[in-house]
Amino acid sequence: MINVIKKYDSEKMLQLVVKIYKAYGFSSADSKKIAHTLIYTDMHGIESHGVQRMTMYDKFIQNGKIKINSTPEIVKETTVSAVIDAHFGIGQLNGIYSMNLAIKKAKEHGVGIVTTKKSSHYGIAGFYANMAAEQGLIGMSSTNSRPGMVPTNSTQPFVGTNPIGFAMPAQPHNFILDFATTTVPQGKIEVYRKLGKDFPEFWVAKDGIDPIYDHTNDQDLDLLRVPKSNVGLTPLGGVSELTGGHKGFGLGIIVEIFTSILSQGDISSEIDGSNPEVGPCQSFIAIDPDIFGNKEAIIARFSDYLQEIRELPAVAGRTIYVHGDKEQLSYLDAKENGINIDDVTISEIKSIATRLGVAFNEYLS
Amino acid sequence: MINVIKKYDSEKMLQLVVKIYKAYGFSSADSKKIAHTLIYTDMHGIESHGVQRMTMYDKFIQNGKIKINSTPEIVKETTVSAVIDAHFGIGQLNGIYSMNLAIKKAKEHGVGIVTTKKSSHYGIAGFYANMAAEQGLIGMSSTNSRPGMVPTNSTQPFVGTNPIGFAMPAQPHNFILDFATTTVPQGKIEVYRKLGKDFPEFWVAKDGIDPIYDHTNDQDLDLLRVPKSNVGLTPLGGVSELTGGHKGFGLGIIVEIFTSILSQGDISSEIDGSNPEVGPCQSFIAIDPDIFGNKEAIIARFSDYLQEIRELPAVAGRTIYVHGDKEQLSYLDAKENGINIDDVTISEIKSIATRLGVAFNEYLS
Repeated sequence: MINVIKKYDSEKMLQLVVKIYKAYGFSSADSKKIAHTLIYTDMHGIESHGVQRMTMYDKFIQNGKIKINSTPEIVKETTVSAVIDAHFGIGQLNGIYSMNLAIKKAKEHGVGIVTTKKSSHYGIAGFYANMAAEQGLIGMSSTNSRPGMVPTNSTQPFVGTNPIGFAMPAQPHNFILDFATTTVPQGKIEVYRKLGKDFPEFWVAKDGIDPIYDHTNDQDLDLLRVPKSNVGLTPLGGVSELTGGHKGFGLGIIVEIFTSILSQGDISSEIDGSNPEVGPCQSFIAIDPDIFGNKEAIIARFSDYLQEIRELPAVAGRTIYVHGDKEQLSYLDAKENGINIDDVTISEIKSIATRLGVAFNEYLS
Repeated sequence: MINVIKKYDSEKMLQLVVKIYKAYGFSSADSKKIAHTLIYTDMHGIESHGVQRMTMYDKFIQNGKIKINSTPEIVKETTVSAVIDAHFGIGQLNGIYSMNLAIKKAKEHGVGIVTTKKSSHYGIAGFYANMAAEQGLIGMSSTNSRPGMVPTNSTQPFVGTNPIGFAMPAQPHNFILDFATTTVPQGKIEVYRKLGKDFPEFWVAKDGIDPIYDHTNDQDLDLLRVPKSNVGLTPLGGVSELTGGHKGFGLGIIVEIFTSILSQGDISSEIDGSNPEVGPCQSFIAIDPDIFGNKEAIIARFSDYLQEIRELPAVAGRTIYVHGDKEQLSYLDAKENGINIDDVTISEIKSIATRLGVAFNEYLS
């Protein structure tokens, strides 16, 4: 079967997603927050982490890994920091709560560092980083995750794909860098498999050094989710130190420090996807540029710097984008023409809606 | 001529380097600090940034880019932050001063973020990050630098090689990650050219997309130092977005934010190597793990985590190192057997010593 991508109205999709989360038992306000993060993600062109993820969340809600009635609890706090136990609430709500706390501390004391344990998958790191940038602050967020990355010279995935989101206010739109510390995130592999496309580069390693390109190699690719298997994602920089693979591996460890190590939560290698007493950890940092100088002048100079990059000589036929540009173009297009969702994802959402008694056809058809 | 690497006693080399910096006019205490950073770097196996760099510093001292009598000045300060104008003093002294200030703030308030402008080349970022780790803190440091990195889809280097140093206390030795946000640092290219070795991977890009492997291609490789040329270093992740090159490019921009943008100093693209009124900027961050929980327990758990990585199944014939392991092995070897310095570097140091009236043969022969 060929998996076709079609356009859907973002506002109608948002309403459907709100309805689904309300049907799970989340409050109306919380359902809107969750749906907003998912639709925001699709509108910004990161389809691997938008409504495509609802099937995984559905599974976690079903098996109790995500607890609908949990609320985040501050278990340690200073003027510039906090540790939060999220009691396995849904990652999006934990993330919004935690980043808002970091933002509050940054506005009051210049810096806020919040680390949150016993959370669940929270979507894209860049969403939370950008919450700070929307308030005129530098924002950073990261999460650990199930073992996905094969450390340099090892055969076994151990470090999570551990993405980092970073945002800084800029004109005409914020600088937003959001990247897995692996060459590509797990979600990108899933999207390629759904779309029936082979992997164009050395994204997946078997036994630490052999590339897998074939998207139909289910026997090996299904091991990406199996603990202690011999199939994993390459670190940013590849599998060799000569191409800098140890740098991506090291960035993955830094994320582990700010998430699980400082929060004293569960390390990536402990997250096996089934134990309901184990969950990912996330970090949220906000910094007020005002503590270094005039915020408007700093942002104006940064915006000029980014514009200089955009206007550098380009490789023939290519465009130089700075981080956030493509996402902004996607967003403007999505507002006008709708979001891109593939048929497999649509049928998955339809089946969730049907099970929960939500009238899918009232919103989409 | 074949450039041969030989072993030199680190203590004798240290004494020689102290003597040379005293001959330039630095105080005895300052000369020891500068020499210590250089010998520390060689002892930890990062020969590209040790005494090999003395020739470049010599040129900067000669042409007034490095001012011997300057001292760093705090121009803006909060409980958790400071902006420093280094008045073009030597980078090593600016770095030590700035990181000590960040450490002091972290010990008092949990976090210290210092950004320093009008500095000069400060050696390896990891040295300053590790200063914090030696005090039981998380340390980070980065510097901008002359344009070296070609942004994704551009033909012209614009972003510096902008390295990031990160250190966290651990047993049996600290975790230290120190990496250029390009695939390799500029210094590595110089070392390969001195040693007469071709580049084994796509480290140098001509016109943004064509690899240069030939170390004898002086005509192109000398353009690595020329502003607005068409030869530059690839970002970490390579020149393609499919291999994650935009991630290394984005990390370079993050370094620019914490160095030049927040300090309101000179951006990488403004550092052309000749204007004495322009100099690189550096950042120094210290965070006390105690604000998140029991420091000893946090460090013990982190140490266990690193040990688990070392003990993963390895690719046949390879060893899994975590960041800092190789440097520690180098250090132990250098203490016992001396540091590795190539003949070209030795003859360069000899010529500097001779010019300054320092008796090279008293220390080395």
